[in-house]
Amino acid sequence: MNFKEEQAKRVEIIEEILKKYLPTQEGHQKVIMEAMEYSVMAGGKRLRPMLMQETYKLFGGEGELVEPFMAAMEMIHTYSLVHDDLPAMDDDDYRRGRKTTHVVYGEAMGILAGDALLNFAFETASKAFTMFPEKSLEIGQALQVLAGKAGIYGMIGGQVVDVESAGNSISKDVLDFIYELKTSALIESSMMIGAILAGADKVDVQSIEKIAKNVGIAFQIQDDILDVTSTVEELGKPIHSDEKNEKTTYVTLVGLEKAKEYVANISMEAIELLRTFETEDAFLEELLKALIHRKK
Amino acid sequence: MNFKEEQAKRVEIIEEILKKYLPTQEGHQKVIMEAMEYSVMAGGKRLRPMLMQETYKLFGGEGELVEPFMAAMEMIHTYSLVHDDLPAMDDDDYRRGRKTTHVVYGEAMGILAGDALLNFAFETASKAFTMFPEKSLEIGQALQVLAGKAGIYGMIGGQVVDVESAGNSISKDVLDFIYELKTSALIESSMMIGAILAGADKVDVQSIEKIAKNVGIAFQIQDDILDVTSTVEELGKPIHSDEKNEKTTYVTLVGLEKAKEYVANISMEAIELLRTFETEDAFLEELLKALIHRKK
Repeated sequence: MNFKEEQAKRVEIIEEILKKYLPTQEGHQKVIMEAMEYSVMAGGKRLRPMLMQETYKLFGGEGELVEPFMAAMEMIHTYSLVHDDLPAMDDDDYRRGRKTTHVVYGEAMGILAGDALLNFAFETASKAFTMFPEKSLEIGQALQVLAGKAGIYGMIGGQVVDVESAGNSISKDVLDFIYELKTSALIESSMMIGAILAGADKVDVQSIEKIAKNVGIAFQIQDDILDVTSTVEELGKPIHSDEKNEKTTYVTLVGLEKAKEYVANISMEAIELLRTFETEDAFLEELLKALIHRKK
Repeated sequence: MNFKEEQAKRVEIIEEILKKYLPTQEGHQKVIMEAMEYSVMAGGKRLRPMLMQETYKLFGGEGELVEPFMAAMEMIHTYSLVHDDLPAMDDDDYRRGRKTTHVVYGEAMGILAGDALLNFAFETASKAFTMFPEKSLEIGQALQVLAGKAGIYGMIGGQVVDVESAGNSISKDVLDFIYELKTSALIESSMMIGAILAGADKVDVQSIEKIAKNVGIAFQIQDDILDVTSTVEELGKPIHSDEKNEKTTYVTLVGLEKAKEYVANISMEAIELLRTFETEDAFLEELLKALIHRKK
């Protein structure tokens, strides 16, 4: 398997799905549809919908049932970036080399575009009820996971503690909390929703949650490690930035070697757990490994 | 029936339901739960959950099925106020005599509290799937209405056009669009969800939507009328503010008499439509009349 090629193929499919579910740009409120599309179609790895679709396939899922949820997940991820970039939050003018949404459309429209994307995510996911009324139970379960992992016990909760902790040194307990909620939560829900919609049983959905949690945390700790061990050329962004910003990371808390060891352990646990399922998905395994062992 | 007494009784019941569904204040992210409760429990008429519960009863609905949706609706209404008050939007420091959420908790937390309330609304509504799995179809329909009327084809759409129109004179077409989406949409979804969860048929849900739309628009035009005809003492806020702000209103567009006539007509249409149902709810009729004929 040529992983890069397979990945590119999937990104293309996902972007077609995103375009299909984004609102048509018409009506007096057209500007908000433009701002939504500008934000969602800004590129990116489309990691969350990709994980959702692969997990759906892993458990034998077929057809379009997963599509509205894939689009919804990317909308939620995107709204969180749009609001993160606002002047009152990280105040970022550029993301992926393009001007951020509030810079292009103004701050009021930046707030509203984020709100609109979050709301439209649930509007889009709940279209599945009309498309597949016979799957109402599974769709209902998937919606609960979608909302739960994005909210105060998931992504928003992690974001709140991250904002509150800025500039302070924090304990390992708090750092674990931020990593798990801010990064892992949406990876967990992406994979769990794929499994739920494909009809996976409760025990398998729990295993998937555990795999995703480990992958999310390993991904985040790898970030801390690369900031210390990589070069500007390889990473494509400044290194030693955590030290400069006096940021608490896994490396500052437990040291470089222990951080590496921990990444290796929880990654191995995730891959081993993935291999216990009756079915397999070679691309999914490669994708998880690529996330854990990334060099940038 | 003593309307004021009946209304006060219902507000009390609704506030108990809100407290029940708001998150417990604990965990590292406790501050966001506090900000959510501060925003939701700031008083108010609780109009939307009240309309939902009465419509639910009108169609024979019983028990707790409607409760998570009542709480969700008030959370959506509240998030829209929290974000409206932000510095980049209306920049209001006070609401109902209390400091606004971003003034108390800071601007970043104001944005996050609004996001958290919108997300938690869907998290709360989708609890109904676990509480009443046998009602998954109705719950799915109700969720679609909840999301649809709150989004870019509903409340957010109206808000976008309102923000865009600020300081410009607008056509009657655009004014109708803003009134219908910004004000009527959530009144429509409140009443429609009550009907749907009670098992009302499609034709009845459409009639309910029409009633709610008329009530919402009449409510909004009455606002324009009172700004011209009321006194500061009676209204409890400055009069002639629309003229001072050179704001386009129904009164500036069609004149006072025609505006009054229009309110009378669409109100009568709504009440007559309400009376065509086989069942009746005296309190609901009084509530709709009170909204239309309000003096403040």
